[in-house]
Amino acid sequence: MVGAGQLARMTQQAAIALGIDLRVLANSRDESAAKVIVDTRLGDYRDLADLREFAKGCAAVTFDHEHVPTEHIQDLIDDGYAVHPGPEALVHAQDKAVMRERLTEIGVPCPAWARVSEAADVEAFAEEHGWPVVVKSVRGGYDGRGVWVCSSAEDAREPLEAGIPLIAEAFVPFERELAVLVARSPHGQGVSYPVVETVQKDGICVEVIAPAPGLVGEDAAAAQHIALKIAQELGVTGLLAVEMFATKTGLVVNELAMRPHNSGHWTIEGARTSQFEQHLRAVLNLPLGSPALAAPVVVMVNLLGGADPDVFSRYEHVMANDPGVKIHFYGKEVRPGRKIGHVTALGVELAEVRARAWHAADCLKGPVDA
Amino acid sequence: MVGAGQLARMTQQAAIALGIDLRVLANSRDESAAKVIVDTRLGDYRDLADLREFAKGCAAVTFDHEHVPTEHIQDLIDDGYAVHPGPEALVHAQDKAVMRERLTEIGVPCPAWARVSEAADVEAFAEEHGWPVVVKSVRGGYDGRGVWVCSSAEDAREPLEAGIPLIAEAFVPFERELAVLVARSPHGQGVSYPVVETVQKDGICVEVIAPAPGLVGEDAAAAQHIALKIAQELGVTGLLAVEMFATKTGLVVNELAMRPHNSGHWTIEGARTSQFEQHLRAVLNLPLGSPALAAPVVVMVNLLGGADPDVFSRYEHVMANDPGVKIHFYGKEVRPGRKIGHVTALGVELAEVRARAWHAADCLKGPVDA
Repeated sequence: MVGAGQLARMTQQAAIALGIDLRVLANSRDESAAKVIVDTRLGDYRDLADLREFAKGCAAVTFDHEHVPTEHIQDLIDDGYAVHPGPEALVHAQDKAVMRERLTEIGVPCPAWARVSEAADVEAFAEEHGWPVVVKSVRGGYDGRGVWVCSSAEDAREPLEAGIPLIAEAFVPFERELAVLVARSPHGQGVSYPVVETVQKDGICVEVIAPAPGLVGEDAAAAQHIALKIAQELGVTGLLAVEMFATKTGLVVNELAMRPHNSGHWTIEGARTSQFEQHLRAVLNLPLGSPALAAPVVVMVNLLGGADPDVFSRYEHVMANDPGVKIHFYGKEVRPGRKIGHVTALGVELAEVRARAWHAADCLKGPVDA
Repeated sequence: MVGAGQLARMTQQAAIALGIDLRVLANSRDESAAKVIVDTRLGDYRDLADLREFAKGCAAVTFDHEHVPTEHIQDLIDDGYAVHPGPEALVHAQDKAVMRERLTEIGVPCPAWARVSEAADVEAFAEEHGWPVVVKSVRGGYDGRGVWVCSSAEDAREPLEAGIPLIAEAFVPFERELAVLVARSPHGQGVSYPVVETVQKDGICVEVIAPAPGLVGEDAAAAQHIALKIAQELGVTGLLAVEMFATKTGLVVNELAMRPHNSGHWTIEGARTSQFEQHLRAVLNLPLGSPALAAPVVVMVNLLGGADPDVFSRYEHVMANDPGVKIHFYGKEVRPGRKIGHVTALGVELAEVRARAWHAADCLKGPVDA
């Protein structure tokens, strides 16, 4: 696995169970996954020589982020390595313009969009679709960075002047956000986890509710169908997370990710097969695991860093208060606002399960101000 | 954790979630846990200097086996380390004579027993309690080694001539075997997992059924009460597994183990808190986690090595046949009859869940003869 963040770290838990020797390419031995993976190699994921050295002897190569240059992935495939997802698929999670073109082509509902490179383009787009306009960098967007919600062309001056490729998208007045996590293997087998509701704050996912409350029958199946269709049409191998807006008039696809995803952390305890095991199965071309829920309601709340870095000192209260809540701490340096872990609660009654998960996360975060 | 077998390996999965830096003392880098734990130290658990070097900087020291000399554990405590379980407790899992004396003293039902050192002792014991007589080495028994079921004193000649300390126990005509896994923290908090039924073959545990079929209400509570009482009276910190015989006239305690135990592997997916997380919580003096079942029926079947070591090649069939079965493979060299992993199935109907678990284990084992 190229990259050694928390996604690789949690993948190691699944790899240990299956007896799979997981190797990671890390920037430093201090990274989240490097602390728990013996076969950690240091190198630069942007450097083809480093990638080639890293891949030697691997049965499959995959990623914990989308930043490996597409052309390097092709080179690894040309060398004979099994790389999942492959470059033709992954480019849709790397390049938002390519993604929008392709999704439009295969009939997946998207916001209105256009490539823009100067203020006049943004104004022309707004004339047709109205303000606000959402300007996005075509590459490198992640967790809200690289997205500018603009009330005027002036708000887009910074990215426009940076000269980076940009697209404009119509602002979608959504009722809530949903996500569908699917897996697809090189054999072509596909499975979908239940649709979840995601709650974002300041562009960061803070909460995931599985299954999405009140979404049943055909509406849930429609969302899963969109995600499975994208996986198949784009030739995704491994996991695909499809973030969607639920609007009054239906679903609109927002973003794609081709790796384990924050919207799937609940599956560790909440589904029969965790997303991390599922990703390993898919990239190794093994039959996929059951995505069935392990409890009627599962809620995951992200743990963001607070002012006091000593999270461990707060375990005692949280564990004593709720013996059933599951704590995940990524072994990362604690900085205010940084994703440093998550908590998961399982149960039957939504309000009760949400309250438990939020209480645990709030307590673990500790004081916000020093 | 002193020792680097599969118990330490599975403890690492729980340690990763909680952000706990797990260090192991291994005999070699090829051991099961050494392959997945970055902070692996090499050394001899029988050597006090190695243990002292290993313990430096550890918040707590614990074990994946019972073979560390009791006096060395006391030395580590005298050095100021938190060692769980402590030597006064652990000696009861190391020395069967000490265990029988103490359990008898606190009124826990045991088989009739006596220390024996020559053939005449065994014959005298048999005269009172009948044949067969179960002769056991006082120290070092593990998984059926060190136990001789004797129809005559002649059958005990080998251990008697070896001059090792022995006890004789009356053979218990049991209906089935049960096990109760409890945890106790230094604070004195105790929790019990549901009672399970264990199935042994040739002295090796092959199957665990949770909860024990047909054991309800006061009968289940009585078994849990015995285990919690032993934990408290012996001052156990960490996990305690109590193996019991269910007889027509009640429960009889067979063996004790003070560590994660084969009879608790089902808890990884089958309980809200896995035994490995529970052990970490207990030895770190954190509040204990919920032992609640995650499904109505959970069955674990041990995976023993067959003639063909390529277990991985059989994953495809097992995973395709049953997307819900959970495979655990310990990364150990495959040898015929050796415990190399386990599988767990969860569900509602006992016969169906057992069939699934056995099918998966049988398939993974592969051919018995080369």
